[in-house]
Amino acid sequence: MGSLNTNVLESNLGCGLNPLDPEEFRKHGHMVIDFLADYYRDIEKYPVRSQVEPGYLKKCLPDTAPYNPESMETIMKDIQTHIVPGLTHWQSPNYFAYFPSSGSTAGFLGEMLSTGFNVVGFNWMSSPAATELETIVMDWLGKMLKLPNSFLFSGNGGGVLQGTTCEAILCTLTAARDRKLNEIGRENIGRLVVYGSDQTHCALQKAAQIAGINPSNFRAVATSKKTNFGLSPESLTAAIVKDLESGLVPLFLCPTVGTTSSTAVDPIGPLCDVAKEYGLWVHIDAAYAGSACICPEFRHFIDGVESADSFSFNAHKWFFTTLDCCCLWVKDPSALVKSLSTNPEYLRNKATESKQVVDYKDWQIALSRRFRSMKLWMVLRTYGVANLRNFLRTHVKMAKHFEGLVAMDGRFEIVVPRNFAMVCFRLLSPADDGENGSADGRANELNRKLLEAINSSGRIYMTHAVVGGTYMIRFAVGATLTEDRHVNLAWKVVKEHADSMLNSIYS
Amino acid sequence: MGSLNTNVLESNLGCGLNPLDPEEFRKHGHMVIDFLADYYRDIEKYPVRSQVEPGYLKKCLPDTAPYNPESMETIMKDIQTHIVPGLTHWQSPNYFAYFPSSGSTAGFLGEMLSTGFNVVGFNWMSSPAATELETIVMDWLGKMLKLPNSFLFSGNGGGVLQGTTCEAILCTLTAARDRKLNEIGRENIGRLVVYGSDQTHCALQKAAQIAGINPSNFRAVATSKKTNFGLSPESLTAAIVKDLESGLVPLFLCPTVGTTSSTAVDPIGPLCDVAKEYGLWVHIDAAYAGSACICPEFRHFIDGVESADSFSFNAHKWFFTTLDCCCLWVKDPSALVKSLSTNPEYLRNKATESKQVVDYKDWQIALSRRFRSMKLWMVLRTYGVANLRNFLRTHVKMAKHFEGLVAMDGRFEIVVPRNFAMVCFRLLSPADDGENGSADGRANELNRKLLEAINSSGRIYMTHAVVGGTYMIRFAVGATLTEDRHVNLAWKVVKEHADSMLNSIYS
Repeated sequence: MGSLNTNVLESNLGCGLNPLDPEEFRKHGHMVIDFLADYYRDIEKYPVRSQVEPGYLKKCLPDTAPYNPESMETIMKDIQTHIVPGLTHWQSPNYFAYFPSSGSTAGFLGEMLSTGFNVVGFNWMSSPAATELETIVMDWLGKMLKLPNSFLFSGNGGGVLQGTTCEAILCTLTAARDRKLNEIGRENIGRLVVYGSDQTHCALQKAAQIAGINPSNFRAVATSKKTNFGLSPESLTAAIVKDLESGLVPLFLCPTVGTTSSTAVDPIGPLCDVAKEYGLWVHIDAAYAGSACICPEFRHFIDGVESADSFSFNAHKWFFTTLDCCCLWVKDPSALVKSLSTNPEYLRNKATESKQVVDYKDWQIALSRRFRSMKLWMVLRTYGVANLRNFLRTHVKMAKHFEGLVAMDGRFEIVVPRNFAMVCFRLLSPADDGENGSADGRANELNRKLLEAINSSGRIYMTHAVVGGTYMIRFAVGATLTEDRHVNLAWKVVKEHADSMLNSIYS
Repeated sequence: MGSLNTNVLESNLGCGLNPLDPEEFRKHGHMVIDFLADYYRDIEKYPVRSQVEPGYLKKCLPDTAPYNPESMETIMKDIQTHIVPGLTHWQSPNYFAYFPSSGSTAGFLGEMLSTGFNVVGFNWMSSPAATELETIVMDWLGKMLKLPNSFLFSGNGGGVLQGTTCEAILCTLTAARDRKLNEIGRENIGRLVVYGSDQTHCALQKAAQIAGINPSNFRAVATSKKTNFGLSPESLTAAIVKDLESGLVPLFLCPTVGTTSSTAVDPIGPLCDVAKEYGLWVHIDAAYAGSACICPEFRHFIDGVESADSFSFNAHKWFFTTLDCCCLWVKDPSALVKSLSTNPEYLRNKATESKQVVDYKDWQIALSRRFRSMKLWMVLRTYGVANLRNFLRTHVKMAKHFEGLVAMDGRFEIVVPRNFAMVCFRLLSPADDGENGSADGRANELNRKLLEAINSSGRIYMTHAVVGGTYMIRFAVGATLTEDRHVNLAWKVVKEHADSMLNSIYS
């Protein structure tokens, strides 16, 4: 078929046919499935971290939207030519940066179905299946994590799917804030204090800012190498007591299970004891490491959760569910509802008035919401608990293997103990005799350069963190396609770059 | 192939293969595309509003997640048997409820691609294409809407894709709040006042609650039939003056273009004049009707936008882009960034430090974000400006046609003037002689019953609103598959139910 014919055919798509014509949908849907299957098949050929320069895309695309329709073939060609080079390939088996964003076929298919149905499940009535599947799946998952019954619907708590941890924290913080202000008066909002550690994810600080907590009342309590960068209950107590002495009102504590910098774990039980004494709402942020707790051998990391008020982890990180999908459980859903509910006339309906249903709009920031439970349900059923545990264990095993490789090479060191599937390591400075502070500065600079050289090669992608003044390279295993051979290759790439860097220093 | 073989084959999927194996992905991806194409083909056979009872799904599903993997065939069968009956079919051509959630093949394919790539575009570095395509598409769309250059990146403003309007309002309100508190001192948070009308979407009230605005400082300024339920500048001025006299600080105004109850339009220009005089941040919520403003004949509804601070509309409502996709433009992105930015060490990178790039994490609540611009780009290119205008005009024409049918039947009345593609109408009470208040009560009850009877039939789905004490039925055209014949059928259904209801009254 000549290009003229193709154009004529394609321009009919926009003009004549309905934009949701089932046969056009079928034809182009199959085309995109093949495109993505080929993308996964060939993904290793792309540099993991995108190599483009700022502003690259503006040069490739016109300044205005097209007036006339363009064919799917033209658009798909542009995606391959202009978009793919600008992607950092989070699904690449050679991706070890940040935390994983582990996709899966089941997660993808669930997302397709919820996108295809495109229902807006703000309340039960607007699509009962969306609400009911979410309550069921959240109870399933809560049981897999052995959360206490008080967090499940079956125990008068309940779970809800948020977009991200920041939203989960903002919702629970708002609930905690309003509960407290109802006791002590709205005029005291400026006295409320929020506590995390200097390792807590920036989501807490942002949520506090948005919720109107005075920025000077945000406490990032210092941690140290002594506690492996976990928040110590003694430091927390000291911070709370000091604030009380200043006439402030301790409100909210957010301990972390698996910090972003180093996967440190705050001691949940002892911290909850402190929080209980002073009447704080405790939200546990297990964004990354929560998923591992479905394995009995990791469950102890959340021991003490029964004393917390809320708990969240991101199924879109290390649980094979595509972005976005943050699982939040609360003991007292009515606290959320009191802060977040709105009841306009145009949403009134019999089911809501019967009080027999959950209306999730009152458990989150937004009114509209996607049918997110579909993808989580697909993941749980397609793989089953046994395989999900095995997948996670495989990642941990690969990280352990990498850790072993690093430990065997005297030029490197493991900076903090590995808890899950991330290894924090660094190259020791050849001149790092430990005798003065500047040696550490040299080591930091060396590792900064090493990491940039590795990432610029495009062969693997890792990112960094600084804890206790030490710059370290984070090797986070968890991309779904990663196998042993990729981990071995990654170590080879690290060593090659280290060799060449050390040689250039000595030469 | 016997069922035993199928089970053996399928159980290998979870156990042996990688959950992102390209060939499994291809096979099951095609299966789901066919499922959805068939769903659209057959969608008219389902009752539009789900007919299930609260708790129906719990009876169909087990109490715990499966330990072993289940086959895709089993899961898809459950979706057809248990999930589809619990859906309210927002994509049905007979769906006229709330506002549309208009899907399209292009929007769906864009969502598939962004889900397939599954990149996390929190900053430029994490996937340059995701950020750059968003800036380009937001400028394209801003030009289509003839937004002033000051809202575009090319004019030092800029656009960002949020999930929902509530998020857009919360982000701009937080920015406005912090700008004001930096002037007058944080301790004055309790004096800040937020203004909307009694027709403003509940998202404003919720955003104000979350942002820590004192609930007693939220003004839902009264509207009336005289202004077709638009907010009058005089009423706004009066409210502001009264608050100033009480020592409060006017902060934020949210006028609406196309209210949820009746698609009323607040007079943007005059309201901005008032806001300017008193130093309020103006955010224009055009969630529903913004899209229509790409047509020259509707553009006048947002005249005056050049004086506002921010503007948003939902591409996931009436713009063929699947949920979620709220387009927000701001004149002063630095105000957002000042309130919402966080700069942890683990996200530090050269591109950010060069200040040549946009890091969208600082323009929104969450850190993580999906590659939403992909679907919007696909929609704009696949249909082109000309067809998008035509699609919207077709919906408006269908609404006009329905309006004509209602107007020709003396038993009914159009309650408020139609602005876009929604008709607000009601059945007049046979005893409605207009002589006393209780006649209105009877009419309200009659229409409540009529609507419930119609929706229970499953043939079409509409919802209601109450404005100025009048209960009315909202007929919102905009589902992508709706054609003239569906509108004619809808009127036939309305008349049949009205006939039978009136007959039963008279008999």
